[in-house]
Amino acid sequence: MNDRKETSDSLKTRQGRKDFLYNIIFESDTPEGKAFDIVLMVCILVSVIIAIFGSTFTAEWLKKTVFFLEYFFTVFFTLEYILRIYCSRNPKGYVLSLFGIIDLLSILPMYLGFFLPQIQYAIIFRCLRLVRVFRVLKLFSFLTEGNVLIQAILASWKKIAVFFMFVVLLVICLGTLMFMVEGNHEGTMFDNLPNSLYWAVVTLSTVGYGDITPVTTMGRFLSAIIMLLGYTILAVPSGIISAAFIRGTGRPVNKRCSNCGRSSHDKDARYCKYCGTRFEDDVDHMD
Amino acid sequence: MNDRKETSDSLKTRQGRKDFLYNIIFESDTPEGKAFDIVLMVCILVSVIIAIFGSTFTAEWLKKTVFFLEYFFTVFFTLEYILRIYCSRNPKGYVLSLFGIIDLLSILPMYLGFFLPQIQYAIIFRCLRLVRVFRVLKLFSFLTEGNVLIQAILASWKKIAVFFMFVVLLVICLGTLMFMVEGNHEGTMFDNLPNSLYWAVVTLSTVGYGDITPVTTMGRFLSAIIMLLGYTILAVPSGIISAAFIRGTGRPVNKRCSNCGRSSHDKDARYCKYCGTRFEDDVDHMD
Amino acid sequence: MNDRKETSDSLKTRQGRKDFLYNIIFESDTPEGKAFDIVLMVCILVSVIIAIFGSTFTAEWLKKTVFFLEYFFTVFFTLEYILRIYCSRNPKGYVLSLFGIIDLLSILPMYLGFFLPQIQYAIIFRCLRLVRVFRVLKLFSFLTEGNVLIQAILASWKKIAVFFMFVVLLVICLGTLMFMVEGNHEGTMFDNLPNSLYWAVVTLSTVGYGDITPVTTMGRFLSAIIMLLGYTILAVPSGIISAAFIRGTGRPVNKRCSNCGRSSHDKDARYCKYCGTRFEDDVDHMD
Amino acid sequence: MNDRKETSDSLKTRQGRKDFLYNIIFESDTPEGKAFDIVLMVCILVSVIIAIFGSTFTAEWLKKTVFFLEYFFTVFFTLEYILRIYCSRNPKGYVLSLFGIIDLLSILPMYLGFFLPQIQYAIIFRCLRLVRVFRVLKLFSFLTEGNVLIQAILASWKKIAVFFMFVVLLVICLGTLMFMVEGNHEGTMFDNLPNSLYWAVVTLSTVGYGDITPVTTMGRFLSAIIMLLGYTILAVPSGIISAAFIRGTGRPVNKRCSNCGRSSHDKDARYCKYCGTRFEDDVDHMD
Repeated sequence: MNDRKETSDSLKTRQGRKDFLYNIIFESDTPEGKAFDIVLMVCILVSVIIAIFGSTFTAEWLKKTVFFLEYFFTVFFTLEYILRIYCSRNPKGYVLSLFGIIDLLSILPMYLGFFLPQIQYAIIFRCLRLVRVFRVLKLFSFLTEGNVLIQAILASWKKIAVFFMFVVLLVICLGTLMFMVEGNHEGTMFDNLPNSLYWAVVTLSTVGYGDITPVTTMGRFLSAIIMLLGYTILAVPSGIISAAFIRGTGRPVNKRCSNCGRSSHDKDARYCKYCGTRFEDDVDHMD
Repeated sequence: MNDRKETSDSLKTRQGRKDFLYNIIFESDTPEGKAFDIVLMVCILVSVIIAIFGSTFTAEWLKKTVFFLEYFFTVFFTLEYILRIYCSRNPKGYVLSLFGIIDLLSILPMYLGFFLPQIQYAIIFRCLRLVRVFRVLKLFSFLTEGNVLIQAILASWKKIAVFFMFVVLLVICLGTLMFMVEGNHEGTMFDNLPNSLYWAVVTLSTVGYGDITPVTTMGRFLSAIIMLLGYTILAVPSGIISAAFIRGTGRPVNKRCSNCGRSSHDKDARYCKYCGTRFEDDVDHMD
Repeated sequence: MNDRKETSDSLKTRQGRKDFLYNIIFESDTPEGKAFDIVLMVCILVSVIIAIFGSTFTAEWLKKTVFFLEYFFTVFFTLEYILRIYCSRNPKGYVLSLFGIIDLLSILPMYLGFFLPQIQYAIIFRCLRLVRVFRVLKLFSFLTEGNVLIQAILASWKKIAVFFMFVVLLVICLGTLMFMVEGNHEGTMFDNLPNSLYWAVVTLSTVGYGDITPVTTMGRFLSAIIMLLGYTILAVPSGIISAAFIRGTGRPVNKRCSNCGRSSHDKDARYCKYCGTRFEDDVDHMD
Repeated sequence: MNDRKETSDSLKTRQGRKDFLYNIIFESDTPEGKAFDIVLMVCILVSVIIAIFGSTFTAEWLKKTVFFLEYFFTVFFTLEYILRIYCSRNPKGYVLSLFGIIDLLSILPMYLGFFLPQIQYAIIFRCLRLVRVFRVLKLFSFLTEGNVLIQAILASWKKIAVFFMFVVLLVICLGTLMFMVEGNHEGTMFDNLPNSLYWAVVTLSTVGYGDITPVTTMGRFLSAIIMLLGYTILAVPSGIISAAFIRGTGRPVNKRCSNCGRSSHDKDARYCKYCGTRFEDDVDHMD
């Protein structure tokens, strides 16, 4: 009996420890949870900054500090990952969730680095930690309220796909045209077709590096027309997305008044704005 | 009789062959049709990539491969073109259709190349094959559902035309102004008027190559004003197209009055705005 | 009596001549009017192209051709101006109208050139002829139908003015900041404050010449933030003008149904789309 | 009594002087107020221009003029600040208001310059005077009518924050990718990771300095895709702000239900959408 009580106590303690850790790691409303979130965010940001700028440091002591910090953060994030699995109420669900995979991917590179020396490009995985800042800041709730951003892009992807195929055709036509006009010039920068197409993309997208530029009067005249043309054409995706946003945010299509039959009511409307009838289908959301 | 049956069989076989080929080439729901579409798309993409990058290869074996592949694709597309005419249910209609002309244009350059050596610029025609990817992917259905993209651009072309004439005037004014301000400077890049106008277009369109840049304080001050001015002015086409999109998507094209036959009614219209007839087809949506 | 008839005939002839010229010059529906319009447009475009590119020609015969053509066009446009006054039904009104002033201004530079040698910059006035292309093409009707373009810009100029003052403040802050960060560097391109402000405008407007670029890690980090910031900020005028367009084109505010009192009807609506009542105030427009 | 009258007179005079000064400094409808506003605006603009361009002057007499003018403006603005406190009806309120702090900050740098020699960067504070031009021009009323501009940006800041985190992730991915592709090239400009990320921002924001550009065919192909991708992605903030503007301007802010007190109703709403009460204030608009 004493033994059983001990086990029960031990169980309680273990469960208590789990709950204690859960409060720290998963919760963010408690003081401990908030403190942990802040520590985590600082670690993430510092580790990402080190991942990016670490390779540019030349001073010996800085290199050593970076080396030490990378090890420290890897150990820290590994510990955090293990504790998350330990205290999670659904360990399997966590491991297989998007965040579980991101957490794992962002600590793997360091360990693989022991075996594969050319893993320096694994910085992308290390930078995946940044996604976790979204979680800490609960930024995803920004997105999910209405799902406006994602819905707007999804609603317009077909139009954008067609638009891009059209742009690719245009780039090939304009690039070849400029290759014909500028290509014969002595010391020309339009020396082959791929470079001309690259120039066409750089110009149409209004990036304009200036590494390839027309020098003949004819070439400059033509590229001036291309620029103005390109600007108007590239106003199209802006228009597509704007339209998607406005429709996406403006009206929930399926809310319709049972009395006057008119729709285009706001999401938060409880009464028809035209005839004053109460919306029945909204009752369960209200109390 | 035996002979007639033979002919009939032969006719049947021929018709069967035609149908078999039709299923492969024109249909895309059958397994054979799908397989053919995939083969066709790979051929189109590879041939376009070769057309663009072929001229930059320097290794002898690569040149030979490109040369061989170009011949192979020309023969392949020629065969496909002939088979399309052969098995089409309306051969004349196919040849004279947009796609028939594109198919012909995209195989012609290779044959003309035997007679005309300077046909290398015919790459534009070869790249026309890309339009056929639209057909394979049935991307045109994206466009036709609502015709939103085309309608939006058609609806705004008048405004855009006026806008461009205004931009041309502005470019002439600003280019001449900068020519006056920067043109007297020693070793100036604004050495003549066409170059100044070219600079004005490069700046107003926010491309900004940097091949012609102001160096005097006055010129830089003026061009800073031009940049900010230009940005606002070039927000106008974006606004025009956005407005066209939003209006274009707001109205369902297929709502049509049963009395006067006119369409372009708003989504929430219950009566024809031209003749006052009640829309019957809206009743079933309301109760 | 014979004399009086003669005078009358002469008057008739003169009036007939005036009408004949009026039909040619001012009308555009008659065959003569159309032909004259086409001749005029070709002259305008050729004279503008000569005005722009004339100074870059080096060949002796080209210079002479340009010189001759300039004289020819000046005489042509002068004659046209005099004939317009002669056959106009309201000569004073024409001379003082916008087009009358533009017509005069575009022929003056050549004559003033005899007295003032440094009048080469008068090209702006000569290019004013381009505005007349608007008239020939009746492009102004594009604008006046709804006056959408002008109304949209007028409706938003206050917001754009405030926005620009904000941008000027931002440019000063960011330019000074970059001057502090990059200015101490050896051989820096941020050598004084005006250049830093110029850089800030070039960057914020996404023109990006590349004549002044940050080289230190800190400077590049800061300018990366400025670019993304600037992009978002400069989306504001685009948003302002889009919103103005959509409101400007969407609804004539003052059309209101006398039966149900609801507005937001289309411009071409003759019946209320909500209750089917005929609009009374539209009658005079309909017959 | 004589003494008291004198004091009263003196008080009256002082009050009169205060009122006189108040009319000049704070009012802008009276002729004196308008004249003062114009003088003030000229002083602000000249002092800001001197602050920016002063350091670039090399001629001795210009340097001296700038030096003298800076002292003059400092004394002038100090005097104005003291007089504003003196004649203000609520001196404490003025000193602690936004404008009071700006007025103080913009005169402090000159005085601190006596003690701290490296205060030349205090130009930002001196340029704060520009904000006062807003006050003089009563430009803030532009903003407050509808509060459209500020509300639109506030309404979209959450979406923009998420968007920017996404852009940062994208920049890291694309920058690392280009570092892998271009980094191994001899004499490459993608020499370390921070530079690659800087290039990614410069390209995605369509600034395109051209100080770092891809030179390999693979790198150019990839960056062409990044440019087109980037253009579409950066159309998103434009769409967000446009949508916010259109919704922000679509609703009159001051329509408020008399029953439940909630606002943000549509222009065409006749019943409160929250409690179903009929809007009384709309009746007079309808008949």
